[in-house]
Amino acid sequence: MTGTLFGIGVGPGDPELMTLKAHRLISEAKVIAYPAPDSGDSFARSIAADAIAPNAIEIPMVVPMRVERFPAQDVYATAAITIAEHLEAGRDVVVLCEGDPFFYGSFMYLFARLSGRFKTEIVPGVSSLAACSAALARPLTARNDTLTVLPGPLDDDAMRDRIDSAEAIAIMKVGRHLPRLRALLDDMGLTKRAGYIERASLPAQVVLPLADAPEAAPYFSMILIYKGDDPWLNQ
Amino acid sequence: MTGTLFGIGVGPGDPELMTLKAHRLISEAKVIAYPAPDSGDSFARSIAADAIAPNAIEIPMVVPMRVERFPAQDVYATAAITIAEHLEAGRDVVVLCEGDPFFYGSFMYLFARLSGRFKTEIVPGVSSLAACSAALARPLTARNDTLTVLPGPLDDDAMRDRIDSAEAIAIMKVGRHLPRLRALLDDMGLTKRAGYIERASLPAQVVLPLADAPEAAPYFSMILIYKGDDPWLNQ
Repeated sequence: MTGTLFGIGVGPGDPELMTLKAHRLISEAKVIAYPAPDSGDSFARSIAADAIAPNAIEIPMVVPMRVERFPAQDVYATAAITIAEHLEAGRDVVVLCEGDPFFYGSFMYLFARLSGRFKTEIVPGVSSLAACSAALARPLTARNDTLTVLPGPLDDDAMRDRIDSAEAIAIMKVGRHLPRLRALLDDMGLTKRAGYIERASLPAQVVLPLADAPEAAPYFSMILIYKGDDPWLNQ
Repeated sequence: MTGTLFGIGVGPGDPELMTLKAHRLISEAKVIAYPAPDSGDSFARSIAADAIAPNAIEIPMVVPMRVERFPAQDVYATAAITIAEHLEAGRDVVVLCEGDPFFYGSFMYLFARLSGRFKTEIVPGVSSLAACSAALARPLTARNDTLTVLPGPLDDDAMRDRIDSAEAIAIMKVGRHLPRLRALLDDMGLTKRAGYIERASLPAQVVLPLADAPEAAPYFSMILIYKGDDPWLNQ
């Protein structure tokens, strides 16, 4: 019997936003893998830390931090070999994923390599999107809205078109793109409808109107825009 | 001291996909409100049932089921009065929300009426979107994809435009629109890239290629389409 590969969403940052299922599976896990930066702590591991058994085997997948953060494929290729050995030996492997595993998650790089060979189960998690709209204290989408989620690096023309055809817009991975995005949204007359959120659900959370956002944004920051009728503001 | 209004996401259906925070707040709650159909059980309450204290005061908000399910505003107006009385008396009120409170949730109708007057806290939950991509066992979005979430009732021309400008597409609230959507996606050459999911994370979950979807879809059904490079299939 080979083991099962679990891709587990640990949520946006507050450990209490893990699901009961994530908490149970992590607590029981004998082998746990997670992405980690080349210096400092793993964010995914820090969320789940209190649930991890002291004698669990840990597999940090050390991904060099780069501007765009597209992970080095060789890191995942190497990790997939190590994880496959545990699965072959009949040991389940839990992979900790920030937010939700399938929502812009690096888990896909392991999933691509292992899901064809081993039983794989995904445990969905609370996304940064949900955490940011909660932090902003404003509904993300209502009734028959179209929601579009855009990556910060997208060029201005494409971004403008896509913002035009949605009522609710989330711009992820804002980081160094903030000055450009701010200028674009200002030009589109949307600044007053835009909120800026950093590190949602964490103690260091920042929530501001876009106009008041800092000059330098971290990678984990988001802009939320609502162009609809604001039914929650005009009852 | 007035009470706090909590909008709590209870996740997509599997009670184990509630967050630890949702579970704690629901367990401690003395007053609990939730939407309920005019016949049958409340879905949100059924998810949280095991956590609800036997002596909790329950406020079902009975919303007649209609085709488009836009809730009758008078139901929420009445509920808001009842809930406000508890808050005024210093009692916290927990409102159970399917999925995530701010992701197409009817919680906004209470939020609109009460958040200006009472301290309000949103507890984000696992969305049906995350649960559907987990059920389909396929990443929803990768790297710098654009994700667009569309309501099933949107007309064909608008839907076609918005699908054209995204790599990942989710169509929510499919229900009676399924035959039309199927014809549209077939015409766009996307049927092979589309999955159909009903009741994600519940025992009655259905996951099928869109081509094999049933003729009649329930309201809680979704179509997921991925037009990108399928990095997880072609390593």
